[in-house]
Amino acid sequence: MLSPMIALTPTERTQIHRIPKRGSYDREAVNAILDEALLCHVGFVHCEQPFVIPTTFARIGDRIFVHGAAASRMLGVISDHPLCVTVTLLDGLVLARSAFHHSMNYRSVVVLGRGSDVTGREEKLEALTAFIEKISSNRSSEVRAPNDKELSATRVIALDITEASAKIRVGGPVDDEEDMSRACWAGHVPLAISSLDPIRNGEGSTPPPPLASYLRRA
Amino acid sequence: MLSPMIALTPTERTQIHRIPKRGSYDREAVNAILDEALLCHVGFVHCEQPFVIPTTFARIGDRIFVHGAAASRMLGVISDHPLCVTVTLLDGLVLARSAFHHSMNYRSVVVLGRGSDVTGREEKLEALTAFIEKISSNRSSEVRAPNDKELSATRVIALDITEASAKIRVGGPVDDEEDMSRACWAGHVPLAISSLDPIRNGEGSTPPPPLASYLRRA
Repeated sequence: MLSPMIALTPTERTQIHRIPKRGSYDREAVNAILDEALLCHVGFVHCEQPFVIPTTFARIGDRIFVHGAAASRMLGVISDHPLCVTVTLLDGLVLARSAFHHSMNYRSVVVLGRGSDVTGREEKLEALTAFIEKISSNRSSEVRAPNDKELSATRVIALDITEASAKIRVGGPVDDEEDMSRACWAGHVPLAISSLDPIRNGEGSTPPPPLASYLRRA
Repeated sequence: MLSPMIALTPTERTQIHRIPKRGSYDREAVNAILDEALLCHVGFVHCEQPFVIPTTFARIGDRIFVHGAAASRMLGVISDHPLCVTVTLLDGLVLARSAFHHSMNYRSVVVLGRGSDVTGREEKLEALTAFIEKISSNRSSEVRAPNDKELSATRVIALDITEASAKIRVGGPVDDEEDMSRACWAGHVPLAISSLDPIRNGEGSTPPPPLASYLRRA
């Protein structure tokens, strides 16, 4: 489950051209962003039209997994075809003294590659377990595991994290010198996802499960 | 600025096939999701490879605007070419009694079309103002407006909201009858973006600006 702490090699397609100092090809940095994100956006091409669809995902080692219904159009298109998986964590608003220098703080990862069908029963179960564990540790042992019918109805696609880059912006605004005395507030406002009170379904006295640390109530 | 409250016509490309009851082609529903989202994911094709890039955006009437550096590779590729703009609001985690029925609550919009360059000075300024106003009402009148050099360095691409659909999931898990007595917590956990304490840049006594209602501290 551990990834080697080696750098990803930037390619012509993953090289950061705009503000290169924000770019990173460090595998540990890429994995940390992937592991904190609850959903990704999958890009694929169908009849020359690009599509971008949000979906949940999980990482195991150096692979990303997405899943869905066996009949899913998206999964059918990305299997053995070029795809792009992008993950974005929005960390804050950057309010500058000029309209031009307004920005956002974020951490994003772009992974390029080809999707491959996960067909082995054990590998499929391992991927589906990772989706549940990502939200709440040990939950996969408390809920009913997928049965054969559910496994057949679920398609899992894997993408190797080999051609990938991260992009990160942090901190406050960078204003022009001549705007520094302008009488307006400037700075940044951190944003965070927080979980609200859980809403129980049905009867029962079991307490809600602990959520992953990045999801805990602020 | 007001959009007519008419339905968008689903096309073969925007028709929701998976769980069609979650789909919507109502313009008001689409606009509400677009207006609450701080960033979108832009999908485009370059040398047969799909790319998905996160970026800020704004809506004015029936058009979406994205912007960036004049030399941006993405903006160059989407101008007058097919693109997809997808917006996703993650509203909650859905924890079921079986692994299979775990899900997420979300509101998403997919818009398909072709990008068109915004070249007129007034239209460009109006779009850039919308980016700022979306975060904080009236802020565009407090900060320094873009000058000619900044306007030349900024490219704005518009996308008409004509071929679009929304997809929405709400509420708790839908478990199988035979799992209902299982002794594990089931329900949903709402998630929300909240703003934390603003961090001032430089000196000054001006208070932080009010943020849009969907960004206020929880």
